[in-house]
Amino acid sequence: MTEGDFLAALRALPLHRGAAGLRDDAARLGDWVLTTDTLVEGVHFLAADPPEDVAWKLLAVNLSDLAAKAAVPEGVLLNYPLRDGAWDAAFVRGFGAALAALGTALVGGDTTSLPPAAPRVLSLTAIGRASAPPSRGGARAGDALFVTGTIGDAGAGLRIARGEAGPDALLAAYRRPWPRLAEGRALGPIVTAMMDVSDGLLIDAARLAGASGLAAEIALDAVPLSADYRAFAGEDRAARLMAATAGDDYQLLFTAPPGVTPPVPATQVGRLLPGTGLTVTDRGDPVSLPARLGFEHRAD
Amino acid sequence: MTEGDFLAALRALPLHRGAAGLRDDAARLGDWVLTTDTLVEGVHFLAADPPEDVAWKLLAVNLSDLAAKAAVPEGVLLNYPLRDGAWDAAFVRGFGAALAALGTALVGGDTTSLPPAAPRVLSLTAIGRASAPPSRGGARAGDALFVTGTIGDAGAGLRIARGEAGPDALLAAYRRPWPRLAEGRALGPIVTAMMDVSDGLLIDAARLAGASGLAAEIALDAVPLSADYRAFAGEDRAARLMAATAGDDYQLLFTAPPGVTPPVPATQVGRLLPGTGLTVTDRGDPVSLPARLGFEHRAD
Repeated sequence: MTEGDFLAALRALPLHRGAAGLRDDAARLGDWVLTTDTLVEGVHFLAADPPEDVAWKLLAVNLSDLAAKAAVPEGVLLNYPLRDGAWDAAFVRGFGAALAALGTALVGGDTTSLPPAAPRVLSLTAIGRASAPPSRGGARAGDALFVTGTIGDAGAGLRIARGEAGPDALLAAYRRPWPRLAEGRALGPIVTAMMDVSDGLLIDAARLAGASGLAAEIALDAVPLSADYRAFAGEDRAARLMAATAGDDYQLLFTAPPGVTPPVPATQVGRLLPGTGLTVTDRGDPVSLPARLGFEHRAD
Repeated sequence: MTEGDFLAALRALPLHRGAAGLRDDAARLGDWVLTTDTLVEGVHFLAADPPEDVAWKLLAVNLSDLAAKAAVPEGVLLNYPLRDGAWDAAFVRGFGAALAALGTALVGGDTTSLPPAAPRVLSLTAIGRASAPPSRGGARAGDALFVTGTIGDAGAGLRIARGEAGPDALLAAYRRPWPRLAEGRALGPIVTAMMDVSDGLLIDAARLAGASGLAAEIALDAVPLSADYRAFAGEDRAARLMAATAGDDYQLLFTAPPGVTPPVPATQVGRLLPGTGLTVTDRGDPVSLPARLGFEHRAD
């Protein structure tokens, strides 16, 4: 049973109407938005990553899903498996700092123990409030596709975390992503669809288009790259494809009707068209899709 | 850093007012009650347990926390790490059957992957609705302490799951606990404090008393044992102490003012008194507390 099979099986279970068919990043219960994400050691973070950074990331990736719903965070529940006293102590310190920095609070959780050699599996559930959360499936043919910030920095940061030389700013993009909560709330009223870029720009754009029953066209040459990224990886087609497939960006990907200017800094990277699938161009030339559009270990 | 240290550190973090100081089984957000529990392979379930039963238990233990809040389940979020196709397929089948049998629905979640040899770590978050959920800290001196159902069956079932000979009913009590949702809702209006018995009658009674700022007195001879349990383990003091410390019962433990008769079948097992700590008697004689009052791997 593959992950796709598993998700198909989950979708056949008794689903709450707020689950939106399990095709969105977050569930709705009245004015509440709920989202949950798990980080697995060796899969979503490295055993050598500082525990304070893992704590930050666990909180940030969940708040990023709330950002995509234009939600105001209300609180979080933490599922934490104790394994190593020093690591656990550093994690809880970092988690407290992250709660304070990102402006939310702990509302509950569960602490368990883990066999000594087992990889850590950390889950967090975030609850936010949003009266009219955008879906990822509301785009219309002709809508422009935008992304906030720059793309690819975290992917470069992962390479640096694994030992390559590179600037601290890229490492920080990987270890300390910043959820775009203020941007999400500002964008809420004007977007037709929104989600966060967690697994890679290409795969997430394909998901947004698919959820909207449309095709996506991405202009690789329009993908915003930071100066640090260009210095680290260049900006040729290979470097742009790497940026667009690396994941962990936690920027917001959204669509707006033609002619609508987003109220926050954002870059148009493509558009939505009738049809299905994903098309990538570079300076107007069609580009073959890479075998791997992004990170596919996670369901949402 | 021990689990107690970790919890103390968590309690020093920015807490939501609905967290009740992280001293309860569930958090409150308006009329919503939220609870989350993690099951770890090798800690909370055995690698050889059937995946359908693990799915049942994961749902049931969370709904049991809602039962203690007199809540009506609204939906659940599942954090599932894929590891083995056949096990995963059986889990999702069992999970669907459990949702249907226990009358709730999936509202969201996250699917990740796990390294092949890693123990499974399964988390579920349950959301329920309750307008006036009882706390575990509302008992008053003189209140009677009651428990629903029988105690110790699941502990005996764990021994059977590990290879001892014994009746299927005890094995089922371990693998397929039934959350006392209807009982919890019926008890809500009359109880002064309520929680579920997840870690053992003695330790959970001590926690209820502690949260209420009182001492608990338990009459071991009053602890309700099933006929199956008595046939399996006897009913002498050792058998009664084993039942009262084994955990996994998922019965409701609650207090009511003297003279109040519970509206559901329940057995008085003791009372709350001024002071602190736990006292155990057997036919009126004081009993030394066992070294281990229950299962202490879990925070709530």
